[in-house]
Amino acid sequence: MKIGFIGLGTMGLPMASNLLRAGYELVVYNRNRTKAEELGVGVQIADSPGDVVQQTAMVITMLSDDHAVNEVYDGAKGIMSSLQQGGGAKIVMDCSTISPQTSMKLAQKLEELGVDMLDAPVTGSKPQAIEGILTFIVGGKKEIFEQCGPIFEAMGKKAVYMGESGSGSKTKLANNALVASNLIALSESIALVKKCGLDPALFLEVIAGGGARSGMAEMKGPKILNRDFSPQFMTQLMLKDLKLATQLADSIQLPMPALGVAKQIFQIACNEGAGTEDMSAVVKCFEQWAQLNQGNAE
Amino acid sequence: MKIGFIGLGTMGLPMASNLLRAGYELVVYNRNRTKAEELGVGVQIADSPGDVVQQTAMVITMLSDDHAVNEVYDGAKGIMSSLQQGGGAKIVMDCSTISPQTSMKLAQKLEELGVDMLDAPVTGSKPQAIEGILTFIVGGKKEIFEQCGPIFEAMGKKAVYMGESGSGSKTKLANNALVASNLIALSESIALVKKCGLDPALFLEVIAGGGARSGMAEMKGPKILNRDFSPQFMTQLMLKDLKLATQLADSIQLPMPALGVAKQIFQIACNEGAGTEDMSAVVKCFEQWAQLNQGNAE
Repeated sequence: MKIGFIGLGTMGLPMASNLLRAGYELVVYNRNRTKAEELGVGVQIADSPGDVVQQTAMVITMLSDDHAVNEVYDGAKGIMSSLQQGGGAKIVMDCSTISPQTSMKLAQKLEELGVDMLDAPVTGSKPQAIEGILTFIVGGKKEIFEQCGPIFEAMGKKAVYMGESGSGSKTKLANNALVASNLIALSESIALVKKCGLDPALFLEVIAGGGARSGMAEMKGPKILNRDFSPQFMTQLMLKDLKLATQLADSIQLPMPALGVAKQIFQIACNEGAGTEDMSAVVKCFEQWAQLNQGNAE
Repeated sequence: MKIGFIGLGTMGLPMASNLLRAGYELVVYNRNRTKAEELGVGVQIADSPGDVVQQTAMVITMLSDDHAVNEVYDGAKGIMSSLQQGGGAKIVMDCSTISPQTSMKLAQKLEELGVDMLDAPVTGSKPQAIEGILTFIVGGKKEIFEQCGPIFEAMGKKAVYMGESGSGSKTKLANNALVASNLIALSESIALVKKCGLDPALFLEVIAGGGARSGMAEMKGPKILNRDFSPQFMTQLMLKDLKLATQLADSIQLPMPALGVAKQIFQIACNEGAGTEDMSAVVKCFEQWAQLNQGNAE
């Protein structure tokens, strides 16, 4: 089966590699063509998103934000204009983390063209994408979700069907609000321990076995201790997600004070120059506020 | 070896049971004598904390707050007045979660009487106390910590030495600030998912495998879904710890905005009547704010 893949960034490139490994043929498009060439021989490189759509029955997109998604779907030589000419893909799966409004708007437009769309953002970052152990959080028609089972399997360890179009995007924003809040709480408590003159490595050992344990403590605790802020998931990308989560909460009149705190500290971290570092760099805000002197490997 | 044990509440009773099971003889004191009798035959019941101190070489205290600790240590027929008469225990271990100031003040007073004190609060609640898999977080002299190794082993799975007197109490407060912040973040994201009309059980499945996972999601997620707010750790006890953590942060000029949010929501939950419920009942604040109609098993 021939699959289209648009967006070969930090996440898209390893995801496309895993599809190849599973035996799928690929037609790919990326703004920067060099990335597409990295995938190796036998991969067809298209000149535009619209080209990809014409040559495949199913297209996956993995893009950085609403703007990029709108450009690829609604722009010149984009997915929509190509489909409007007739022919082309019958299923489109968007794995980007974007606003549910955008997901739902695109799904509706595509439906009018007889094309089914899934919003299927993922949890996991670069290492999970490489290992093929992402979790897909999916919105759209259930039968389309089921049809895509083998494709999810090639790139992930799990796919959870959440409901109608937009449900995947909404759940992903709730997930990332939780990730960010847990990371802020971790950073804050590490700063407290350090300012008390105690050993943060011992603190990580204490929390590992108890109710305070978290994915963030396991994944980001060692990065913080080692001053390794090389990006697995950039601070500025999480800030984007926290702004989208805030818009979602605001649209349904839900107060989310922990999210409010997290968003503000991510904004401060970006303003202080940590936007392209790993999101664990938010700890530097607390260290600065605590007037702790920290080495910085960057 | 004969050990004194003072405070046979939710945590103290199973901890004392595990000491008995490990072969230690016990002299116990509890304000409510019935609890002491629950431990069974062969356990000596003393009339006062001071009595316990006179009959044992080592005393463990497990009390609910600073007030109870001050009463047991500094009150009439308390530990101090008994020691001042000469003789009695040479090591005292306080497992209560209290202010580091109180821990350090008591340790100093005891040292003047030639008695060594450890502050050794625990992570884990009732189930971990029963199973004997608590983690002890310990401050005091290192050689005393090492001497107490077999005693920690009888009641827990791990004991982490943090440093001088007060270090155990400080680390415990950082731990509980993290627990509470993670629980608030979980509650908030569950409210978001529910208000979006999505299934919170599926949301827990999504987060289980990814960066959003946490001890709180694993331990409290199912309680929230099942509307089971029977106490493992009461909301009002956590509120007490969050106030102590805030005092500690304030005393070293450290801003902790996530702790600030958590403390306020725990205060609201207590004011709304959830003080003696499990702390997972804080989710009800968000459900109320989200105007979600929830059944309540209570």
